[in-house]
Amino acid sequence: MTPPADSVGLVTTQKFVYEQPFALCCGRDLPGFELVYETYGTLNAEKTNAILICHALSGNHHAAGYYASDTKPGWWDSCIGPGKPIDTQKFFIVSLNNLGGCHGSTGPLSINPATQQPYGPDFPTVVVRDWVASQALLADHLGVQKFAAVIGGSLGGMQAMQWSIDFPDRIASALVIAAAAKLSAQNIAFNEIARQAIASDASYFSGRYNEHDKSPSKGLGLARMIGHVTYLSDDGMREKFGRELKSGDPSQGGDVEFQVESYLRHQGQAFSQRFDANTYMLMTKALDFFDPAREHNDDLVATLAAAEAKFLVISFTSDWRFSVARSKEIVNALVAARKNVASAIIKSDHGHDSFLLPIPRYVNVLKTYLNRIYRDTCEVKK
Amino acid sequence: MTPPADSVGLVTTQKFVYEQPFALCCGRDLPGFELVYETYGTLNAEKTNAILICHALSGNHHAAGYYASDTKPGWWDSCIGPGKPIDTQKFFIVSLNNLGGCHGSTGPLSINPATQQPYGPDFPTVVVRDWVASQALLADHLGVQKFAAVIGGSLGGMQAMQWSIDFPDRIASALVIAAAAKLSAQNIAFNEIARQAIASDASYFSGRYNEHDKSPSKGLGLARMIGHVTYLSDDGMREKFGRELKSGDPSQGGDVEFQVESYLRHQGQAFSQRFDANTYMLMTKALDFFDPAREHNDDLVATLAAAEAKFLVISFTSDWRFSVARSKEIVNALVAARKNVASAIIKSDHGHDSFLLPIPRYVNVLKTYLNRIYRDTCEVKK
Repeated sequence: MTPPADSVGLVTTQKFVYEQPFALCCGRDLPGFELVYETYGTLNAEKTNAILICHALSGNHHAAGYYASDTKPGWWDSCIGPGKPIDTQKFFIVSLNNLGGCHGSTGPLSINPATQQPYGPDFPTVVVRDWVASQALLADHLGVQKFAAVIGGSLGGMQAMQWSIDFPDRIASALVIAAAAKLSAQNIAFNEIARQAIASDASYFSGRYNEHDKSPSKGLGLARMIGHVTYLSDDGMREKFGRELKSGDPSQGGDVEFQVESYLRHQGQAFSQRFDANTYMLMTKALDFFDPAREHNDDLVATLAAAEAKFLVISFTSDWRFSVARSKEIVNALVAARKNVASAIIKSDHGHDSFLLPIPRYVNVLKTYLNRIYRDTCEVKK
Repeated sequence: MTPPADSVGLVTTQKFVYEQPFALCCGRDLPGFELVYETYGTLNAEKTNAILICHALSGNHHAAGYYASDTKPGWWDSCIGPGKPIDTQKFFIVSLNNLGGCHGSTGPLSINPATQQPYGPDFPTVVVRDWVASQALLADHLGVQKFAAVIGGSLGGMQAMQWSIDFPDRIASALVIAAAAKLSAQNIAFNEIARQAIASDASYFSGRYNEHDKSPSKGLGLARMIGHVTYLSDDGMREKFGRELKSGDPSQGGDVEFQVESYLRHQGQAFSQRFDANTYMLMTKALDFFDPAREHNDDLVATLAAAEAKFLVISFTSDWRFSVARSKEIVNALVAARKNVASAIIKSDHGHDSFLLPIPRYVNVLKTYLNRIYRDTCEVKK
């Protein structure tokens, strides 16, 4: 296909191979790892214009542009490209698949050198801090000492926050979108139910489904359905589906199907074909475990004290998984820690999924903020 | 055990046997049916002081008092008893297990006379209107021409509303608590995921699990966990569980268990042992299908035009499954239809489950309202 003119065009995937032992927070080592990534735009001579994109639960490295084999662009193509908010005419953008992922980076599907079998459920626990450490090694490999911005939504926003804490001198700005400083009990509960759905599938075999030539696709589909409903809003779903019927008549009972039901089943099935259940388990655990203030006596202000980045914190009115209140907690802590912080609450009916959508005010906020970052961080130093 | 003095004491279950064919809205007939029920208090000579309690998704006929074999009282014992809001010194209270239930009334566990096997998944679809019609037959049996009140929370509130529409001259007041005039797409979505969880269980056998001597307990447990989380509120869960750990250390990863996770798993397991999966399927469908305005061109005002009852509509601030806005829709329609309607929005952190809890203002509203109903409907006629 011919990519549209405002896209980054055809893209290819690259691979970073790290061949030394990598110590994880859980106490285990990886003997080395690979990260697949894509880059869009050009790194300037001063290497000051790099942006890191961190993906969420089910994301991957293909954030923008097109593959020759596919008509669908990357997951954040609406925001990344020439003239778009994350402007490839200005910035050099790096997007990777995180450690533990199932799209090419070292994860449960990779061969464990110790056994010559795929890791499967034996892949070690990975936490947000591990991702950030591995991303820093990727930055070293690319010659990027300091990112102009680290940007992410949801679990990606948690990585941006962790970057500001762990590598204060390597990140000029952190864009924390639709995120939280830690999950609530309700968030953990939904993740746990998703995990239980996977673990309850008779084809799960305690995570060793590949050895049995099986796939817990029903369980993974259910997990996705649960996630999907909670990423939307009641109002958004009402607008999209209402009580529209696909078949049957509720006043008669019997075989009735509402549109929202067949939509959800389709979402679940499609997801279970493109995602690995062990990775889903690992990613939801990383979400649950994220709680940087835990090591600082639950004091988020103290946790953020060392950060040097500028912050932009964005939330969406109808997002009830990572509500406006959760973003306000981050903003309040940053203000109390006397950091440079801007924030925006974007009106939207699309729930948590809003962060992936080209909502005009949202896009505008991103564009304006990143233009300023470019001026302050990239142009000035020229 | 010795029941507390403010309880209705030891109670026993009675059975109403209806031996004629009963036509259901789905077009199928039951050759007859049985309803198990309990009564508390005494029917007055004029038979004007009867109250019908309608149960919700997972409820049953044991609403108050104690069984000799059990230390736990009925599910609404906090509100039903001598001196309590639903006062057994004043009212004669009837509480039944609905058709399609799994606690003794005719349902999927009953023998189908045509096959001499349990109905299982072949039990016909039952809608709220069918329940109300069968409850009216029970009222006939008890000699109750007109209920002083029909009361229910959630799916029970829908029955109270349907009563006011289908039998306007047989109900003096309808107490519609934490309900909605119809489910939203989000509500249907959660119910569908619960059904998918059950149907995905390898022990479900398309509902014929009993024939295989199996039980889809994992799927039913999952369904309950999904329901349970959505019946609580984010704030309520934060207060109850926060991020309290049962074991492990999230910053280390590995085997970590949050309190909320083990709580949910316990809830799911316990429920799967006391409830029938086919009944759960049937009850969630009845919820989805409820939409009395559908037959009136989606005009709720026109739907309620014939109602003669007084209405009390109660909602709870943190209930996001059946939100305050949903109750307001009912109140607005009743006002527009020029009905006698009172309403209360009760502040509570306990989500949808609030309707089962003895929240002081809620209890007080119920008591005051029912005292007035007693004065107007029962005493005056003496």
